[in-house]
Amino acid sequence: MQIAIPLFPGHTALDSVGPYQVFSYLPGAEVVVCAARPGVVEDDAGLLAVDVRRSLADVPSPDVIVVPGGQSTHRMIRDGDPVIDWIRTTAPHATWTTSVCTGALLLGAAGLLTGLPATTHWASYDVLASFGASPTQQRVVEAGAVVTAAGVSAGIDLALTLVGKLAGDDAARAIQLGIEYDPQPPYDAGAPSKATPAIRELVGAVLDEQRRAALAGR
Amino acid sequence: MQIAIPLFPGHTALDSVGPYQVFSYLPGAEVVVCAARPGVVEDDAGLLAVDVRRSLADVPSPDVIVVPGGQSTHRMIRDGDPVIDWIRTTAPHATWTTSVCTGALLLGAAGLLTGLPATTHWASYDVLASFGASPTQQRVVEAGAVVTAAGVSAGIDLALTLVGKLAGDDAARAIQLGIEYDPQPPYDAGAPSKATPAIRELVGAVLDEQRRAALAGR
Repeated sequence: MQIAIPLFPGHTALDSVGPYQVFSYLPGAEVVVCAARPGVVEDDAGLLAVDVRRSLADVPSPDVIVVPGGQSTHRMIRDGDPVIDWIRTTAPHATWTTSVCTGALLLGAAGLLTGLPATTHWASYDVLASFGASPTQQRVVEAGAVVTAAGVSAGIDLALTLVGKLAGDDAARAIQLGIEYDPQPPYDAGAPSKATPAIRELVGAVLDEQRRAALAGR
Repeated sequence: MQIAIPLFPGHTALDSVGPYQVFSYLPGAEVVVCAARPGVVEDDAGLLAVDVRRSLADVPSPDVIVVPGGQSTHRMIRDGDPVIDWIRTTAPHATWTTSVCTGALLLGAAGLLTGLPATTHWASYDVLASFGASPTQQRVVEAGAVVTAAGVSAGIDLALTLVGKLAGDDAARAIQLGIEYDPQPPYDAGAPSKATPAIRELVGAVLDEQRRAALAGR
């Protein structure tokens, strides 16, 4: 079973590495990190650079697709991108096509979300709706072969959910124990409904500015 | 404020990327990923290769040190390693010296844990104790300037805890909301006390074999 994680400049590192770590422990799975061209792909903070060895063309028929997000997705859906084209051609043959955070926007641009419930980072529900999806405030949203997860850290929950489907509940539990995923956040502000209005507005403003910067190519 | 994350061959990707993602959103923080030598550093699954631009020597006085783990730490503490030497010389001047998972073994080898409560991946409590530390079954253990976290995914909780200390509770809450860290694991087996004996034994056996392989240089 091949699990493909396409990276692109400006992806959010944890969006991809969360699921990557879970799937890397799945017996029989070949996890492939790929990109439009092999070479170094920087994340959105510009601090973590992944040396990608496989091109999208090297991965024409993955069984599972896991698309990370990042503010650069806003530019990609405006301008088009090889990752979107690749999703469009590979998804019809995949068992599961999934996304983390604003990776859902790339699924939307590939035409996969029309009429479906889906989720993304809470600050991008409006853009998700523009693809004909119904934004759904759940951590992981299943709609047939398309499974979308909420922002950034939700990819870990997505991946464990998928492992349960692919290899059974006990396989997922074993991996959860292996990565000691017994989360105990020191605060309880991880969803818009749980944060104060002031913090929501602050984070929303920062993300809006990042989105504008990404659209301007900064 | 400089936050250093030293990588080494065989580190566990999520150990470093969880805290990295949290700190990358901390205003005023310079997050530096470094390694013994600049160049490509592979993770323990051999599937994710990080192009590291800074050497340990380039980062002589970080304010915060975040050491990831991985099975290769068992070889490093047996044979010695530049990362251990770097921890030994930089930690006395750092505000916080921290670890995720078996990164704690490197702190132990650097002499930082003698007589202190500390944690690590649950499968390595015995090795942690060999450095004079008192293994403590908590997700994040604070002992003065040394803060250790449990296995792999616990680095996210560690980093949010540290952001609260460095920049205040609301800064930590804002980052938690930014990465939508409202975890909802689909299973409840993320700690040894929560998994069945059969799953504990299975995962323990897999980890033992990985440890043996790392010690044998495989």
